[in-house]
Amino acid sequence: MKLDALLSPESVAVLGASPEPGDLGHRVAHNLCAGGFGGEIVLVHPQGGQLDGRPVATELGQAVDLAVVATPAREVQAAVEAALGAGAQAIQVATPLERRVGSEKGELERELLAACKARGVRLLGPSSLGVVNRAHGLNATFVEHLPPVGSIAVVSQSSALAAAILDWTASRGVGISKLIALGNKLDVDEIDVFEHLLGDPTTRVVIGYLEYIRAGRDFLKVAEALSSVKPVILLKTGSTGAGARASAAHLGEPPAAEMAYGAAFKRSGVVRAESFQMLLDSARALVSQPLPRGPRMAVVTNAGGPGIMAADALEQHGMQLAALGQGTLAALRKLLPPEAGVENPVDVLGDADPARFAEAVRSVQADPGVDGIVLVLAPQASTRPVETARALVACLDHSKPALAAFMGGGGVVEARQALVAAGVPDFPAPHRAARSLGALCEYATWRRRPPRVVTRYPVNRRRVERILRRVEREGRTDVEEFMAKEVLAAYDFSIPQGQLVTTADEAVEAAERLGYPVVLKIVSPDIVQKSAVGGVRLGLVNPEQVSDGFDLIMLRIQKQRPDALIEGLVVEKMCPRGLEVVVGMTRDPEFGPLLMFGLGGIAIEVLEDVAFYLAPITEDEALQMLKSTRSFQTIEARKARVGMDVAAIASALQRLSQLATDFPQVREVEVSPFIVGRPGQESIVADARLVIAKGVAP
Amino acid sequence: MKLDALLSPESVAVLGASPEPGDLGHRVAHNLCAGGFGGEIVLVHPQGGQLDGRPVATELGQAVDLAVVATPAREVQAAVEAALGAGAQAIQVATPLERRVGSEKGELERELLAACKARGVRLLGPSSLGVVNRAHGLNATFVEHLPPVGSIAVVSQSSALAAAILDWTASRGVGISKLIALGNKLDVDEIDVFEHLLGDPTTRVVIGYLEYIRAGRDFLKVAEALSSVKPVILLKTGSTGAGARASAAHLGEPPAAEMAYGAAFKRSGVVRAESFQMLLDSARALVSQPLPRGPRMAVVTNAGGPGIMAADALEQHGMQLAALGQGTLAALRKLLPPEAGVENPVDVLGDADPARFAEAVRSVQADPGVDGIVLVLAPQASTRPVETARALVACLDHSKPALAAFMGGGGVVEARQALVAAGVPDFPAPHRAARSLGALCEYATWRRRPPRVVTRYPVNRRRVERILRRVEREGRTDVEEFMAKEVLAAYDFSIPQGQLVTTADEAVEAAERLGYPVVLKIVSPDIVQKSAVGGVRLGLVNPEQVSDGFDLIMLRIQKQRPDALIEGLVVEKMCPRGLEVVVGMTRDPEFGPLLMFGLGGIAIEVLEDVAFYLAPITEDEALQMLKSTRSFQTIEARKARVGMDVAAIASALQRLSQLATDFPQVREVEVSPFIVGRPGQESIVADARLVIAKGVAP
Repeated sequence: MKLDALLSPESVAVLGASPEPGDLGHRVAHNLCAGGFGGEIVLVHPQGGQLDGRPVATELGQAVDLAVVATPAREVQAAVEAALGAGAQAIQVATPLERRVGSEKGELERELLAACKARGVRLLGPSSLGVVNRAHGLNATFVEHLPPVGSIAVVSQSSALAAAILDWTASRGVGISKLIALGNKLDVDEIDVFEHLLGDPTTRVVIGYLEYIRAGRDFLKVAEALSSVKPVILLKTGSTGAGARASAAHLGEPPAAEMAYGAAFKRSGVVRAESFQMLLDSARALVSQPLPRGPRMAVVTNAGGPGIMAADALEQHGMQLAALGQGTLAALRKLLPPEAGVENPVDVLGDADPARFAEAVRSVQADPGVDGIVLVLAPQASTRPVETARALVACLDHSKPALAAFMGGGGVVEARQALVAAGVPDFPAPHRAARSLGALCEYATWRRRPPRVVTRYPVNRRRVERILRRVEREGRTDVEEFMAKEVLAAYDFSIPQGQLVTTADEAVEAAERLGYPVVLKIVSPDIVQKSAVGGVRLGLVNPEQVSDGFDLIMLRIQKQRPDALIEGLVVEKMCPRGLEVVVGMTRDPEFGPLLMFGLGGIAIEVLEDVAFYLAPITEDEALQMLKSTRSFQTIEARKARVGMDVAAIASALQRLSQLATDFPQVREVEVSPFIVGRPGQESIVADARLVIAKGVAP
Repeated sequence: MKLDALLSPESVAVLGASPEPGDLGHRVAHNLCAGGFGGEIVLVHPQGGQLDGRPVATELGQAVDLAVVATPAREVQAAVEAALGAGAQAIQVATPLERRVGSEKGELERELLAACKARGVRLLGPSSLGVVNRAHGLNATFVEHLPPVGSIAVVSQSSALAAAILDWTASRGVGISKLIALGNKLDVDEIDVFEHLLGDPTTRVVIGYLEYIRAGRDFLKVAEALSSVKPVILLKTGSTGAGARASAAHLGEPPAAEMAYGAAFKRSGVVRAESFQMLLDSARALVSQPLPRGPRMAVVTNAGGPGIMAADALEQHGMQLAALGQGTLAALRKLLPPEAGVENPVDVLGDADPARFAEAVRSVQADPGVDGIVLVLAPQASTRPVETARALVACLDHSKPALAAFMGGGGVVEARQALVAAGVPDFPAPHRAARSLGALCEYATWRRRPPRVVTRYPVNRRRVERILRRVEREGRTDVEEFMAKEVLAAYDFSIPQGQLVTTADEAVEAAERLGYPVVLKIVSPDIVQKSAVGGVRLGLVNPEQVSDGFDLIMLRIQKQRPDALIEGLVVEKMCPRGLEVVVGMTRDPEFGPLLMFGLGGIAIEVLEDVAFYLAPITEDEALQMLKSTRSFQTIEARKARVGMDVAAIASALQRLSQLATDFPQVREVEVSPFIVGRPGQESIVADARLVIAKGVAP
């Protein structure tokens, strides 16, 4: 359902329009009246009277598009019912409703939601700061001083943060188009708002603050659609253990897995802000600057030290210092005094006048090897900040992003204002300009991504259905290695040749047929951790060892797990040596199947050097996953030295993705290790486990 | 030599006191006259005349404590000579001297330095912004508007950055005691200034910006002495590859190794700022707040989301969310509405009045399990920021650090001013308050460090002298494995039992004596990379394999390196299995011997998970080195599982430290791998190499 009644109402009622100037309802009513809203305004309060020269009715006696409920908490239910009764199309509850932190959704909230749903009315809040729509002259919040009209839309779950953003942007002259504070998200949530902003011509950049996301798959769709037309920057808190615990306490339930949020934002092109400051910095850069064509950045500075700071920060945020072309270097040498630095960072020296600084920027800007520019100025004896700012503004052609860091305080205030007024975002320190350029780069890279084509592999789906049915019949959820490998084999994974045996003689016979060395492993639905109970023997090289191994396993298992159902032992050909990696899949409650890749051993267990990506995955994305791990260097090095079938890992991830999509009841798969062969060789599942969920329809 | 004449002169001359108001010399002269300086002022310019109502002499005709040279560049040499001739005690050259970037110290600079040295006169600059000494009423810079009088001293190599810091602090009301801009550091450098600040009662915190440090060992001493009495925060640029290259281009020579700076700052208690902003934020926290007793921090907030942001940031910066005591929780439950969050972060809710907020802070402050507090406020409907700020100021007892993050813009300006005026630093976002609290924690931890007692191990120093003399006589620098192990054995390292042999029969005999399996390795001063030329055979288990191995090595070496001098082969008992780590030492040109530790394999090569520490090292520091690597978890896990002699690694590092201190000609040692045994077992040097420098006196 559209949000037009909420965001662009023709008529607005404020319920709780109290005569007390300090009351929430009074302030909302006052701001609505004073904000230039062109539609009809209806003020309601039991005491009646007047407010800002307008009559206050004692009851809501007419239908309105939007009813804002700003009464005391105990009157909220009656007010919502009155609004519904009078035929309101949308309701915003500004009042915070009492709900013990950590408790379930309150009974009152459930009743409000049901009443609104029954009439097809959208509900924003409770605890919503409200809505601002600059193009519509609408300010239905208690915040009196709004930022100027601009192109940034703000979506915030926290009303406090929404108010802080309004205050911050107002004081810095950063313009906004709309603000929607979601509050408790009983009904209207970020998905509704993103859908609306998709077609909102007044919004060019969307920024948001979210504490959690439900309906993850819907979020993905709408966020990807929105990012495809305008940048979306989100601050999502709770990223550390402490933050997540605090967030869970605040919300009353555990949030979705952090890595799932990371993967969801990556997939849908959302730029993730690490802090409040980065959220606003990135927005200022993205709303004013063209997207860079690549990561090669130039720094032009009038001071060596701050130039180095900018270079440091560019590299830290994944960009490169551009190598300037010969023509550019020649032009700079001609332009600058001999002691100046013409190599990037270009140091125009402390005595640079505005013309010299601007001329250097002009040369750098024209260099086809430069994708973006950071302009650094630190005030020195002969520096003329304001004139320099004006000269820079005049020479920038907006073909590439240019961000400024004019350092200092009062001495550069006027210069900074001149830059900002001309659409050149300025930051108080070089690292913030560089980080904001990084946000531009990240978004530009996502926009340039290749089309997503998910490969469908020919697989034996029937066979997996049969196996899973059998497992489900037996009431199990942990599927042990032998069966897990059968499932993977049906999805075209190579598994070691092997045979299920029940006697020592059969084991020897199988080993003779397979060829030594072989491995013996217990097969029991009750034993998933086989090594821990003595259920595995590796590297057996002759009949005697196989026979001994069989007896030893049986002996130990019967001692340690006398209760376990033993199906037999599997005799497997020992896997060849090769690089051991781990590929897997888990299912996030909100975002669905999450593929996982890491180099085996220390990289995963200790260093948490693991890449996650949401299924379904394309070949390109699978390769990106590999490349995004730090240990990819090891893989590259090994590939160069002995050859390695890196594509086999990408293919394995794609086939796991397909398995996850085909079988929603598969909750977890872990192939650990997956032994990657040389090109032309097979890559092999050396061990695997699979977890299925009960009661999920296939 | 003391800096009194420079920093607290009784008389100051400005050479180049031009009548042109825009000229550097004019501005310096004007600021000196207008700044409240109580001593004698002498203005000099060839044109004479008047400036600010004072006479301008055409020549310097009298001795002064400090002569500031602010003439055009071509007149600098004459001005310095005139100052020296007239008997100046200290000279500051404000004028930037032309020096092609990347070139050697200019001839002019060398002459100036020599002339000053000959007369025992200290020289600041050239390119020095100059000196500010608030207690002395001295402003010998071109910056007109100074920050208020305070307790922060500023040392900056870059004059541009010094000016930016003055401008920034002035605009935010942050007070400074002194500022010294070092410029090109011909003579006076950070070491001189730190020595001065050590006994400066007007300075309580030192902040600095440095691009490089020479005389690293002297720096260490003075920085450690200074940090022991007041916090020192440094911004050192060039930390990334790009930054280092830019810095090298700017300075004309490669900087000392980045890891050496890291180790030097850690050793000497210097808090390292990652950015300009963090430098100033940390200074504001350290100058106003008591040091925390530990890392357990509390957040008190009036808004859930921003509270979570603070929790996230505290954990990211190495602190913990304090678990509040039962008494505190009970008090908070009584105080706060039922829907408030009493667990840390404490959420006093959006409708909190100043009294409720302050009372909650009072409870948290009294909790002995809380080491510091972050106060977060986001403006909401009924929030009264100014009154809240005043209530908080009144309830804080300064027993623990308390930092505020009042979010927003104009709406919280007055509140923020009230906090800052009362000595509670306020930051525009929670993560900056948390990061600043992290700086307090880091410094407090260093201040609490145990006394540094370096253990001297009983070693066979004579034996090493003999070996090194022999190597030096032979004119070699790379010492191969056999000899390197002899050196290490003399420093009480266990090396595998082995024997040098020259025939296959001798090899077999030695193997029989040592016991199988054995290893064969070529011994040749010309072959350091033995494996690459087929000079190593591992895991030989019988006489035949040893004999074959001997012949194969000889055959291959003679083919591949017919020129090499072969001393024979060593037969070594094969090392037992165990955890493989790498310990080593390199010598930094500025900071001296740098010890190194990492887990073998991927951790070092790919993930650069390596710890560095400057020698000499204590046992405690060696253990800290181990703990500071991410892979220490692997070591801990293995220790828990199979037992491991972790102390052996710490001891190895200490003995390498002793070797480095005893033998300055040892330039590099690498023990790779060092096989760490279980407790009670030996830990063994499986392979080692050593590099010695030519012509270093032992």
